[in-house]
Amino acid sequence: MSDANTLNRQWLLAQRPVGDVKPGDFRYVEGPLPSLRDGDVLVRVLYFGFDASQRIYLTDHGGYMPPVQVGEPMRSMGIGQVVESRNPAYHQGDLVEGFMSWQDYVVARSDGPMPLRVLPKADFPVTWNLGVFGVGGLTAYFGVVDGLKVKPGDTVVISAATGATGSLAGAIAKAMGAKQVIGIAGGAEKCRWIVEKAGYDAAIDYKNENLDERLKALCPQGVDAYFDNVGGPMLETLLENMVPRGRVLICGAMSSGYHSAAIPGPSNYMRICTQMLQVTGILLFFYRDRFPEGAQQLARWVAEGKLHVEESLFEGFERAPALLPTMFSGKDPGKLILKIAEAQF
Amino acid sequence: MSDANTLNRQWLLAQRPVGDVKPGDFRYVEGPLPSLRDGDVLVRVLYFGFDASQRIYLTDHGGYMPPVQVGEPMRSMGIGQVVESRNPAYHQGDLVEGFMSWQDYVVARSDGPMPLRVLPKADFPVTWNLGVFGVGGLTAYFGVVDGLKVKPGDTVVISAATGATGSLAGAIAKAMGAKQVIGIAGGAEKCRWIVEKAGYDAAIDYKNENLDERLKALCPQGVDAYFDNVGGPMLETLLENMVPRGRVLICGAMSSGYHSAAIPGPSNYMRICTQMLQVTGILLFFYRDRFPEGAQQLARWVAEGKLHVEESLFEGFERAPALLPTMFSGKDPGKLILKIAEAQF
Repeated sequence: MSDANTLNRQWLLAQRPVGDVKPGDFRYVEGPLPSLRDGDVLVRVLYFGFDASQRIYLTDHGGYMPPVQVGEPMRSMGIGQVVESRNPAYHQGDLVEGFMSWQDYVVARSDGPMPLRVLPKADFPVTWNLGVFGVGGLTAYFGVVDGLKVKPGDTVVISAATGATGSLAGAIAKAMGAKQVIGIAGGAEKCRWIVEKAGYDAAIDYKNENLDERLKALCPQGVDAYFDNVGGPMLETLLENMVPRGRVLICGAMSSGYHSAAIPGPSNYMRICTQMLQVTGILLFFYRDRFPEGAQQLARWVAEGKLHVEESLFEGFERAPALLPTMFSGKDPGKLILKIAEAQF
Repeated sequence: MSDANTLNRQWLLAQRPVGDVKPGDFRYVEGPLPSLRDGDVLVRVLYFGFDASQRIYLTDHGGYMPPVQVGEPMRSMGIGQVVESRNPAYHQGDLVEGFMSWQDYVVARSDGPMPLRVLPKADFPVTWNLGVFGVGGLTAYFGVVDGLKVKPGDTVVISAATGATGSLAGAIAKAMGAKQVIGIAGGAEKCRWIVEKAGYDAAIDYKNENLDERLKALCPQGVDAYFDNVGGPMLETLLENMVPRGRVLICGAMSSGYHSAAIPGPSNYMRICTQMLQVTGILLFFYRDRFPEGAQQLARWVAEGKLHVEESLFEGFERAPALLPTMFSGKDPGKLILKIAEAQF
């Protein structure tokens, strides 16, 4: 299935991006197949999933993971197929999901903290393992259920509501009994999509509407729970509109572009004090023991028609560097996925 | 006890302070006694308690209360004695505690959200009602017990550890079973006091020691719970040293001097996300239904010798404007109190 002549295309980090990540920050090379040691698994990558957190891996601190070094292939979540296994937990032909990188073939070590998971046969598209049953869906689930503890009657606001996480978090909040779920997104088309497809009660177009005024009009009693994917001035405006003892989930800071480790905290963070807010973070890694619970509940809601699954699917290995910046500059709703090869059965 | 000729000395706000509050921001006048309406109580003020939050009342936003306007007497917590009552809940001679202002006589309305409380006879100094049984003690109690949920085995760090709140919070954390309680203060003398008098296990002198290095040396496993009275770079350093899922209480931002409404949030607030921290605020007002619980538990601990009560007591109405800035520039440990008159029995 692969041999010494097999081509391994790679997108390497050419330079640390300054400011917004650009396609030119990556460099195309063709390399040999990596060789295997005992315990290793050789995986043919089929799909790349795109995450805003990939920009964090490109800073010199790396955030919660070691940074990608210049000259290394770009880190990415992915779905692949095992072509050779020296590890009893994996078998040739298995479909697997987890941390991969921008190349045709990756070697999975057996000693990492997040081993590739073998995907069971399922009656849904395999790419859903990157979206609704992957980082986005699980983050939305644990964020709404455990982080924000959304309960019946809550008024919930979710930013980046068309993102892989936000596009699911609204419907999950509704499923947990929220009275009113409001999504924030940029542009009339996305706002329409939020309400018509993603199960939100209302949308605020932050690019064309006054967020503060719209919040006060839509939820005059205040916001019980805010799922923050954006940070910046949007977070500040929300802090002004929370009910006393309201709950805030810090999930992302998209507005910063994740250019550096330093991301200014809200200049009104003392609202946490004076309104006795509860601010909690979410990093999915901490929930890994509960992934089965999350995936099962998400599957139940999908089966019941309560969750709308949206993907923005592209094809072609060469497009990876150009797609990553669209995570910040604007892309279609749902999970952004790039297909680079076909599974073999 | 008072008549039309009685002198009512007042310190009025002369101008909104710019930057640090200064004695010259207040203006001395002598006015007539206020007149009473039905439901009103005339109170002779005996003691002023000083709080950092008084600086917040001097901004044009006022924080969680309406700002003090130029020309109005400065707001202050106080203890006084009822000289005339048109309210059945208060009787002449009663000692009362609550929101007062920098004048000899105040009129308490009956319809405020925080009515003056009548102090029961007790076998401790009446001024303790401003300190250990007042804002500082109750904030320390609810902050440690409810906000931070300190539990046996915790490593706890408390900033402004010689303050009215911090001087009690350490011993309360110990009483709740904390394994290690570390106080942060400025100067060797204060740090000695923290350990010798206030029940802390260790102290860090932030003015003369490297906070980050000392934290890593004292608690190499990380900090479970941080009681933040300071904000600024100190909060940022603590965020770097919290254990995953650690708890942070936002109680104050002394380092800002409370010059304005905008106080920069920590530039590493995304640690909340990546470490899944739980950040909670405390504003004592929200606990008013539980004040009796807090006061009883505090009294029990005092009786058991578990809490050391410290006061920094001054005398003389004229000193009020000069004492307020010392809340920020440095003062002796414990509750800062100014006596302005003697109770009459």
